[in-house]
Amino acid sequence: MKESTHQHPSTPRSKDEIQTTVNRLKRIEGQVRGIQKMVEDDRYCVDILVQISAINAALKKVGHSITERHIKHCVSDAILSGEGDEAIDELMEVMTQFSK
Amino acid sequence: MKESTHQHPSTPRSKDEIQTTVNRLKRIEGQVRGIQKMVEDDRYCVDILVQISAINAALKKVGHSITERHIKHCVSDAILSGEGDEAIDELMEVMTQFSK
Amino acid sequence: MKESTHQHPSTPRSKDEIQTTVNRLKRIEGQVRGIQKMVEDDRYCVDILVQISAINAALKKVGHSITERHIKHCVSDAILSGEGDEAIDELMEVMTQFSK
Amino acid sequence: MKESTHQHPSTPRSKDEIQTTVNRLKRIEGQVRGIQKMVEDDRYCVDILVQISAINAALKKVGHSITERHIKHCVSDAILSGEGDEAIDELMEVMTQFSK
Repeated sequence: MKESTHQHPSTPRSKDEIQTTVNRLKRIEGQVRGIQKMVEDDRYCVDILVQISAINAALKKVGHSITERHIKHCVSDAILSGEGDEAIDELMEVMTQFSK
Repeated sequence: MKESTHQHPSTPRSKDEIQTTVNRLKRIEGQVRGIQKMVEDDRYCVDILVQISAINAALKKVGHSITERHIKHCVSDAILSGEGDEAIDELMEVMTQFSK
Repeated sequence: MKESTHQHPSTPRSKDEIQTTVNRLKRIEGQVRGIQKMVEDDRYCVDILVQISAINAALKKVGHSITERHIKHCVSDAILSGEGDEAIDELMEVMTQFSK
Repeated sequence: MKESTHQHPSTPRSKDEIQTTVNRLKRIEGQVRGIQKMVEDDRYCVDILVQISAINAALKKVGHSITERHIKHCVSDAILSGEGDEAIDELMEVMTQFSK
């Protein structure tokens, strides 16, 4: 992955947006700690795998909402200012990485 | 998902196995906290997405190694004692959930 | 999935673009027929699975290039004419379906 | 991917099993041809993407049922004859390829 094109989103996230995303990530952090406990307690493999797949799903949702906001702001602004191609190439690259 | 068939793996995990997996999960927990910080600092969407996809890949690896151990121990033992079908159905169900 | 918003891309595909994509799909069609033959010959499961995963990868690449063109033309044009939100919602919906 | 360990499944597929799988693959082949037609007709990108994701889902289902049969026969037989480890390594390798 090349260096990314920006330091910040073209439109800053609102306090609410930041809080909502941080809360979702805190929940995911708690789920990861929960799995550590399951491993320490030598819990049944399938129960651990179910939890891991739940975390993956939760992370995908966070990624989805960040991608949506990215397209609605950063990519749209780049298109409106005639610099869409670079922004779209960058987007496609990160989406490819995600689909692996 | 129905209730799982067991409380513990058919062969208990060794201390080393537990420690290795817990260490990997602690690293993932740190990565999730790192993303929280990035969101709080209103960092560029694509940089956050790259980190999320790295966590997804790391979680998949943990899931892969737990699945492998599960098949080598729990599923194999079930097959050897003539109860393979139930164990394989359970395995297929969790693998379907993973591939979503 | 709701009905889609358009009948055609905002910029028609060139003859060359159409031919390139059709050729890739013809190759995929041939691969699917190849798997039918493998099943009829009762070939080893793992060899069939490797071929199926190759087709999945090839289909993903076609999907990727259609998505890229869609964003560079249809979505960009929608954004430039002030109708970006609907186009982006539609894009996110199809991307969610893909990531399943 | 190394060369696979066998030429055929440990238990031959029945005529019915072969027919069911071939029929599903013929349907997939028809879907791929359908997409070629959509591209030739320059149809809307999102409609094509929806069809591609339907094919991916159908292929995954075929892969799932071949994997299930593979574990219930080939892998189980290998485990029962004391050669489980090689069979399980081969299985994990193809599953990793699939999850990409």
